[in-house]
Amino acid sequence: MPDTFLPAPLLTALQDLLGPSGILTETSDTQSYCTDWRMLYQGKCAAVLRPATTEACAKAVALCVQYGVPMVPQGGNTSMVGGATPDTSGKAVVISTTRMNRIIAIDHADLTMTVEAGVTLKAAQDAALKEGLMLPLSISSEGSADIGGVLATNAGGNNTVRYGNARELALGLEAVLPDGSVLNVMRKLRKDNTGYALRQLLIGSEGTLGIITTAVIQLQPQPRSRETALCAVQNTQAALDLFATFRKQDPAAIQAFEYMSGTSMALVNSLIENCALPLSEPAPAYVLVELASPRADDSLRTLMEETLGTAFENGLVSDAVLAESETQRQALWMIREEHAEAQKRAGASVKNDVSVPLATIPDFIERATAACENLIPGIRVAPFGHIGDGNIHFNLVQPEGADAAAFLAQDHAMMDTVAGIVRELGGSFSAEHGVGQLKTYMMPSWRGGAELDSMRKIKAALDPKNLMNPGKIFPDAE
Amino acid sequence: MPDTFLPAPLLTALQDLLGPSGILTETSDTQSYCTDWRMLYQGKCAAVLRPATTEACAKAVALCVQYGVPMVPQGGNTSMVGGATPDTSGKAVVISTTRMNRIIAIDHADLTMTVEAGVTLKAAQDAALKEGLMLPLSISSEGSADIGGVLATNAGGNNTVRYGNARELALGLEAVLPDGSVLNVMRKLRKDNTGYALRQLLIGSEGTLGIITTAVIQLQPQPRSRETALCAVQNTQAALDLFATFRKQDPAAIQAFEYMSGTSMALVNSLIENCALPLSEPAPAYVLVELASPRADDSLRTLMEETLGTAFENGLVSDAVLAESETQRQALWMIREEHAEAQKRAGASVKNDVSVPLATIPDFIERATAACENLIPGIRVAPFGHIGDGNIHFNLVQPEGADAAAFLAQDHAMMDTVAGIVRELGGSFSAEHGVGQLKTYMMPSWRGGAELDSMRKIKAALDPKNLMNPGKIFPDAE
Repeated sequence: MPDTFLPAPLLTALQDLLGPSGILTETSDTQSYCTDWRMLYQGKCAAVLRPATTEACAKAVALCVQYGVPMVPQGGNTSMVGGATPDTSGKAVVISTTRMNRIIAIDHADLTMTVEAGVTLKAAQDAALKEGLMLPLSISSEGSADIGGVLATNAGGNNTVRYGNARELALGLEAVLPDGSVLNVMRKLRKDNTGYALRQLLIGSEGTLGIITTAVIQLQPQPRSRETALCAVQNTQAALDLFATFRKQDPAAIQAFEYMSGTSMALVNSLIENCALPLSEPAPAYVLVELASPRADDSLRTLMEETLGTAFENGLVSDAVLAESETQRQALWMIREEHAEAQKRAGASVKNDVSVPLATIPDFIERATAACENLIPGIRVAPFGHIGDGNIHFNLVQPEGADAAAFLAQDHAMMDTVAGIVRELGGSFSAEHGVGQLKTYMMPSWRGGAELDSMRKIKAALDPKNLMNPGKIFPDAE
Repeated sequence: MPDTFLPAPLLTALQDLLGPSGILTETSDTQSYCTDWRMLYQGKCAAVLRPATTEACAKAVALCVQYGVPMVPQGGNTSMVGGATPDTSGKAVVISTTRMNRIIAIDHADLTMTVEAGVTLKAAQDAALKEGLMLPLSISSEGSADIGGVLATNAGGNNTVRYGNARELALGLEAVLPDGSVLNVMRKLRKDNTGYALRQLLIGSEGTLGIITTAVIQLQPQPRSRETALCAVQNTQAALDLFATFRKQDPAAIQAFEYMSGTSMALVNSLIENCALPLSEPAPAYVLVELASPRADDSLRTLMEETLGTAFENGLVSDAVLAESETQRQALWMIREEHAEAQKRAGASVKNDVSVPLATIPDFIERATAACENLIPGIRVAPFGHIGDGNIHFNLVQPEGADAAAFLAQDHAMMDTVAGIVRELGGSFSAEHGVGQLKTYMMPSWRGGAELDSMRKIKAALDPKNLMNPGKIFPDAE
């Protein structure tokens, strides 16, 4: 009998149900499931359950409920906030969706993919691509993150500005609820007004209301034309005005619209190989804009050139470079994607993944920059991010030559300073990453009153014993 | 003291709270609030409450809860399913949102409108238009339907194919919950992963989870180019293939894609003035396609002509006419919009507002047509609707010269026949109109098991006394 908290009859029943490869109980096997990707949490579990079908998953959940065993759903284990990591008691089981990994169908009439939870986002993207279609969701962890986790956390990314978050892409859903019943809302319908929005509720509930097992995802035709440009702008307001100009021309053409502060860009240019600034001189801020269309005509090029031409005349843009080939396009994107790495090389840093209403972004960056510089003289305020959807990674890099540990010791002071301004502007303390266990303590003060109260009531109604991913989202859950 | 079920202290408190114009108790004043638009239901109420602010609405709800008085939220009173009509007991109050009718702000940076529930959809559209923007939701009752009702019922319409339903358009929401507390999720954020999707849950809950009082609606730039064509096709599959062809070219360009059967079109041509068929000869089916773009260039015309040209060569389209002016465009749309009126003039008819997965539409129409013709010889099967989003109005017109009453006596047999096929194809018995009280009886068999069970648990958690719009959605609520 392995060393586990599970009662013997439950263990036997689970072994019978899931088979030898469907349950792991040795610590050497379960350890990797008990640590989060950022290494912030080191938990323990009684077992890792790896059901291969929805039916097996449902039966396993029902057994756990019968014995009062907490369950932690886990997909690709790439949470940024410890959302899929068990606590240290060792009493919970991790339920991994890894083995439910079939792409069931790609439907060219409905333009949908029916896919099981354990398929990685990358594998799903590739399967769509192979059929000449596009799954329009892209995040940096897509090689490991799976569809179930992506939906459970309502993932965002670079293309939210065009296609919305994961919630907007899911047309159907199947999930095992906290009582072991199976919710099947797999209807491929764009119009269906027959009761409550259970699909939307499950999506983004971070595994606290059930385990997503299968989904229907909306696809798009592959773009056949694409234009990418890196632009120098005088300030954040100019970046925002440029976004508004493109949006006025054609919001559906904007595939991505990314902002990079001059400070953060300078770090990339100086610390990353092959990332020199491809413009004549440094600027206070930059924008990477990508237009795309499934149409193969050249009107996109005209749109890009004319819009940038006018922006140049209006003083919004001081310099710009357009990608003339796929290689050049990838080079421009590399400059955008290396900001996190460059900041890492520059020393210790503190990250704030926040969102604010678009109109307030310039005010937010100005005020938060001043406040942080006032707090820590010499600090390098290096924001960048998805300005087109209001999501700024307001990252703070230690002063040059300063002591890293001393800088990091002030992390809460920095985070509270930024969060205070975000709150005044009607923003959010977690734009993309969710609450998990890292940010549960913020829920009462940010989402308190009727909002958190309603969430608690719904949680208690669907999971009265609080066995499904306890300790996530809600601060005082056990 | 007026003749009302309300306890005297509650009536006094409500009068003090709402003022003379804020509460109606005379039957002559309340009668119009107690009958639905289709005249299917004639209810009674103890009073009509007309709060002018969210605060007054919240206090009125709290008072009603204190005295155990049921509440029926009502917007423009245009429900197709009796969703806003009180029962015949006379014990409920109607809470009308009519006086909360301010357009609070139009934000050009965020491209949003902040608007109170009582503003009609048409007034909101017009306000957006005045600012050079578009509120991309259009339904036939938009002159009376208000924003609160549109959101409470997740309204659809012609443009769902491009912009989604009402739920997808709402970025923020304020609502009075069944306990009288105010849920404020008015954040104008495209990314905000901090807990459950309460906004999405409230939207489409048909007033059973609270009263929507204010919303933030996403706007779009006004289209600057538009192309509209009426096409003759050989059958439903050809109509669907033509949709797929346009979508492959550019899904974002498709503003509307409407289907009309030859039977229904013939009724329009023969029974409605100024609606002759603008094509050389009748066809088995027709499609009205409208492309639009905020861009002013002429690529949309090219897209329309080239796509139709190829479709003509492939045999998908046998004939087509393109609108060359706004007058011609409106004439084509009139042909589409007169189908309901033409069917009315042709005699008694039975309506089925259903949706099915796109791929199954041809199969659905073929099978449902055969089944209905088998059921009632001579019946005129006259479907039309939003084929681009899978929503077909599968309407059935009595045989020529037959007795209307005898035909209508078989309405359940016809509806059950159609519904049975819809169910086999994974469709929905209510695509746009919701459940209300008309279709509550269908919920257990169509949405039973874990789905209805979860809805009931959520309802009970947020409205334990079942006072908020009782008798709607759920069949056995009192």
